[in-house]
Amino acid sequence: MSAIENSKLAIIGAGAVGTSLAYASLIRQSAREVVLYDINEAKVEAEVLDLAHGTQFTGASCVSGGSDLDAIAGANMVVITAGARQHPGQSRLDMAGVNVGILRELMPKLVERAPDAVFMIVTNPCDILTYAALHFSGLPSARVFGSGTVLDSSRLRWLLAHRVDVAIANVHAVIVGEHGDSEFPLWSQARVGPISLAQWVADDISPVTNGRAKFSEAEFEAITEDVKTAAYRVIAGKGATNYAIGLSGARIVEAVLRDEGAVLPVSSVLTGYRGVSKVALSVPTVVNADGVSRVIEVPFSDSEQTLFQHSADTLRATLDRLGLD
Amino acid sequence: MSAIENSKLAIIGAGAVGTSLAYASLIRQSAREVVLYDINEAKVEAEVLDLAHGTQFTGASCVSGGSDLDAIAGANMVVITAGARQHPGQSRLDMAGVNVGILRELMPKLVERAPDAVFMIVTNPCDILTYAALHFSGLPSARVFGSGTVLDSSRLRWLLAHRVDVAIANVHAVIVGEHGDSEFPLWSQARVGPISLAQWVADDISPVTNGRAKFSEAEFEAITEDVKTAAYRVIAGKGATNYAIGLSGARIVEAVLRDEGAVLPVSSVLTGYRGVSKVALSVPTVVNADGVSRVIEVPFSDSEQTLFQHSADTLRATLDRLGLD
Amino acid sequence: MSAIENSKLAIIGAGAVGTSLAYASLIRQSAREVVLYDINEAKVEAEVLDLAHGTQFTGASCVSGGSDLDAIAGANMVVITAGARQHPGQSRLDMAGVNVGILRELMPKLVERAPDAVFMIVTNPCDILTYAALHFSGLPSARVFGSGTVLDSSRLRWLLAHRVDVAIANVHAVIVGEHGDSEFPLWSQARVGPISLAQWVADDISPVTNGRAKFSEAEFEAITEDVKTAAYRVIAGKGATNYAIGLSGARIVEAVLRDEGAVLPVSSVLTGYRGVSKVALSVPTVVNADGVSRVIEVPFSDSEQTLFQHSADTLRATLDRLGLD
Amino acid sequence: MSAIENSKLAIIGAGAVGTSLAYASLIRQSAREVVLYDINEAKVEAEVLDLAHGTQFTGASCVSGGSDLDAIAGANMVVITAGARQHPGQSRLDMAGVNVGILRELMPKLVERAPDAVFMIVTNPCDILTYAALHFSGLPSARVFGSGTVLDSSRLRWLLAHRVDVAIANVHAVIVGEHGDSEFPLWSQARVGPISLAQWVADDISPVTNGRAKFSEAEFEAITEDVKTAAYRVIAGKGATNYAIGLSGARIVEAVLRDEGAVLPVSSVLTGYRGVSKVALSVPTVVNADGVSRVIEVPFSDSEQTLFQHSADTLRATLDRLGLD
Repeated sequence: MSAIENSKLAIIGAGAVGTSLAYASLIRQSAREVVLYDINEAKVEAEVLDLAHGTQFTGASCVSGGSDLDAIAGANMVVITAGARQHPGQSRLDMAGVNVGILRELMPKLVERAPDAVFMIVTNPCDILTYAALHFSGLPSARVFGSGTVLDSSRLRWLLAHRVDVAIANVHAVIVGEHGDSEFPLWSQARVGPISLAQWVADDISPVTNGRAKFSEAEFEAITEDVKTAAYRVIAGKGATNYAIGLSGARIVEAVLRDEGAVLPVSSVLTGYRGVSKVALSVPTVVNADGVSRVIEVPFSDSEQTLFQHSADTLRATLDRLGLD
Repeated sequence: MSAIENSKLAIIGAGAVGTSLAYASLIRQSAREVVLYDINEAKVEAEVLDLAHGTQFTGASCVSGGSDLDAIAGANMVVITAGARQHPGQSRLDMAGVNVGILRELMPKLVERAPDAVFMIVTNPCDILTYAALHFSGLPSARVFGSGTVLDSSRLRWLLAHRVDVAIANVHAVIVGEHGDSEFPLWSQARVGPISLAQWVADDISPVTNGRAKFSEAEFEAITEDVKTAAYRVIAGKGATNYAIGLSGARIVEAVLRDEGAVLPVSSVLTGYRGVSKVALSVPTVVNADGVSRVIEVPFSDSEQTLFQHSADTLRATLDRLGLD
Repeated sequence: MSAIENSKLAIIGAGAVGTSLAYASLIRQSAREVVLYDINEAKVEAEVLDLAHGTQFTGASCVSGGSDLDAIAGANMVVITAGARQHPGQSRLDMAGVNVGILRELMPKLVERAPDAVFMIVTNPCDILTYAALHFSGLPSARVFGSGTVLDSSRLRWLLAHRVDVAIANVHAVIVGEHGDSEFPLWSQARVGPISLAQWVADDISPVTNGRAKFSEAEFEAITEDVKTAAYRVIAGKGATNYAIGLSGARIVEAVLRDEGAVLPVSSVLTGYRGVSKVALSVPTVVNADGVSRVIEVPFSDSEQTLFQHSADTLRATLDRLGLD
Repeated sequence: MSAIENSKLAIIGAGAVGTSLAYASLIRQSAREVVLYDINEAKVEAEVLDLAHGTQFTGASCVSGGSDLDAIAGANMVVITAGARQHPGQSRLDMAGVNVGILRELMPKLVERAPDAVFMIVTNPCDILTYAALHFSGLPSARVFGSGTVLDSSRLRWLLAHRVDVAIANVHAVIVGEHGDSEFPLWSQARVGPISLAQWVADDISPVTNGRAKFSEAEFEAITEDVKTAAYRVIAGKGATNYAIGLSGARIVEAVLRDEGAVLPVSSVLTGYRGVSKVALSVPTVVNADGVSRVIEVPFSDSEQTLFQHSADTLRATLDRLGLD
């Protein structure tokens, strides 16, 4: 018996998202062992080879995998990136239905092989599938969540950091709600270092003033729009998004596997959060080795409450149409 | 000519603080090259050897140094940890006077050898010596600052992170004012993730509630006291503080050498900040390759304003007695 | 003026290789600033956005870019991944000719904008294009090299590490010659920790023996074949190779930008190396901020010398046919 | 139940070595949790506080500890740095006897609380105490080893890297035998990148030749002497060695806790290694989560064999005098 059992991360789906997430996890050493699974044997074996060929440069982290699901046995965390993309002529609801069907079949097999794992859904529509995955898993709700708006929040912070010319690590802002069209930034809680974003002004007393002005309401709206449409622009230019979601996913994996207690806007099934229940939505959440350790009750302005309820209603309607009670 | 000139960090003083800072900088690869200087040749050469013997494990970072000040030539950043400690029977003011005298002689020699460097004062009393060092350097005020309350803020965040059971990276709180007895936390700006610390409650809706209660006024006061007396307890038990200040210093070094724009409560000479001028005090500050890029005008409560003015008055009185106008 | 000028990496070509290299460089913080360039504006802007959206998780490293070549101005290192792929019905020579033509036009523009940079060619055929790029650049030979067999060597080490069950970092083996079909491992120099690979046996004295046997000649040959055909298998399964070459490239970038003096099998134009001149081939090379600091004269067995000369002859013939003297 | 149990490192002894090792482990994130133990309650609590105050800057790694040995319960690895130093007038043998006595009492208590841990002895005389610790532990020999000549080898590599002007990571050389006066470098196996150190010449074909000459026999001897006396010089100048041993120790900890299979010259009790049994000596060793996975049978030259046997005889004699069979 060894002195320690090291972390094992299973990634389901060897497409652009799954492999970028594997790549980022290996480089960041987010897990000791990464296992990649896909039903497409030729594809997954090629991706594993390509990733493995770089492991001279990834410390102790290593990768394996293939089309045999048993390889994920005993994983500490399972990240699901597999799923159908929207076909031309197919509605988003139809696509969602297809992916729900995939999870219905997949989740019991995953839970059987990795019964103690924390499960993260990355496949879209993320919130719908998180709800479905929890349902099909039979697990406690803390153990199944979605990557949610961690990526969207990162996009927001990148825009804000450029605007205020401060390190992105010191720009605190979060997108909540649906990972999709009804999402919105919690502007009331956005901060630059220790001050509210709305208080950020250029007429400071420093000799190194840079002449930037206060944020206007119009600018807040423009930034919100920018974040919400970012994925569309990336997809228009390159056909998919993969790098940023790969990094975001790897970061969440670390919060679980290192038992960090990190605050991240992941999507989990809510019960009585700001009046919302029976949908999965992203809110600031403490993530540790239990999965969702707790959701943080954030004060909402009236308009934020309205937007959040709207997000919830939208998702609940979709879940109803998909027959997910 | 090479394609790039790498970062060079000079550390003045090979005592426990200077060498811990060098050690942390090497391990974190905060700088490509660390040069350690001390007037005590035998001591500094032994410390350099001990540090160098570990560089198999510090990537590309390397260390050299000795008792020849010319070795710091061309440094991008100079960190000053040298100075006299308080002797038995000696007043703090007398000790401060001795260290001011050291800087009076040292700063011109340092500026001559590293004319483009950013200078950071770690030696205590940090705020007094930062004011003095700027004065003796003839440099723009952005280029000389003190490590200030970065360490004190780290102590505060550690205490708070344990209390709320959240990753320390998501606990945002800052100590401002003097690096010393008149310092105080900006409780009005303290946050856990996206919410105010004062709003952090245990009766959340999560299924994983941990039953912790709201912060009371008494608890805030106890934590403040704990942080303010932390150094005394460390010194009582081990004779000095070195590890935490070493890490704090290395972190600030990175903000400069990587041109981060990081928000850190370093101490710089203020001009009209919340009514305060002609003293160096710590306030949240954007730190980049220019040194102090800007100080951030933080909203103070009335009591915080009073405490800050008190810090300023205390320091100004000491500066007056030391003849520093 | 700032205290330090940080590292700037320009990547030419926003395809799978260029963006994977950018992604790995950002995550590893190989450079402070990454600039991505491509003639396809929509594509490169989407890739930059996707990379930038993840920079909340990449420390101080940031990314920008587009289809304006001026953005690379002042880069410390330029990595070229752009080029045509082999079309159906097109010979490898024709493809090489197309890419030589691209470099003929591109190199002067790059050198004009980044006159002090070190240039690395990743595009295939890597050795041919390295020779061409140096020719068109007018730069000293130390400043232009190819990624060569760094990737191939990493593949070899991964296979060997699994075979001997030792950390990949302690398996020392190198592929030399052409980055292509005529490459070969220097078996005579391969090591596991402190001993020759040929000496690695299973009948050790440890109580934890794992029963593995000595390497046979047949096994050496099988491993050589495995490495040489690895790229073909990856391409067959996923259509391209990008992750491992991205990591390999990022690693080489670090050796330059951190002025490491690392020993890596990059491809450079040789003059009198083991009797070979006027071709670019990979041999163990000390890489630092000058680019190729020196090539290391490795003892070759007779058969290794024959293989190396064969690699050289093959490449020289191709260069002749391409009109590159 | 959480999805994963994270790594716990216990460090016994809060002196300069133990705390430097803790500091390096926290900064490098070698373990998720570091527990520091010492019988001196005031000292250990102050050291823990000083280390904890810096954990804002150490990711998920955290530290605790005190004078209650129960805090190490369940540790995956236990590092022993506690012990008496040599007093004036005391022989080395007497000092060794005192430390053997400490281990006789300590080991059973440690094994009781951390029955699955790997144990590493850092206290000197390291080889004697490793033998004693294994004896008192009742554990399989793989689970108890000493830090041995990892530090000495790092010193050697640092000297060689400067001499050949190549990155230290590419200089492969190892000190074997006693961690003490009878140790010696395995010159026959020393390498720079892919070539033997003895083959390293300056008259290479590179345009960037630096004019260095071949190593002479006298130079090898001088370097050997330099390494063997390095600790004495450090101690003469600063009173102790702590930083390099701290880093070396943290590195070994990682090899175990990440199950690396790294090759490191740790000290373990040998059985029939090059004719040597019943002493602990350092030889190249594969270190993983089992502790000593295997010792590597390195070819010795005749003189190396003689020196190794001499090391063994010296240690065996001491063990006999200490009554350790």
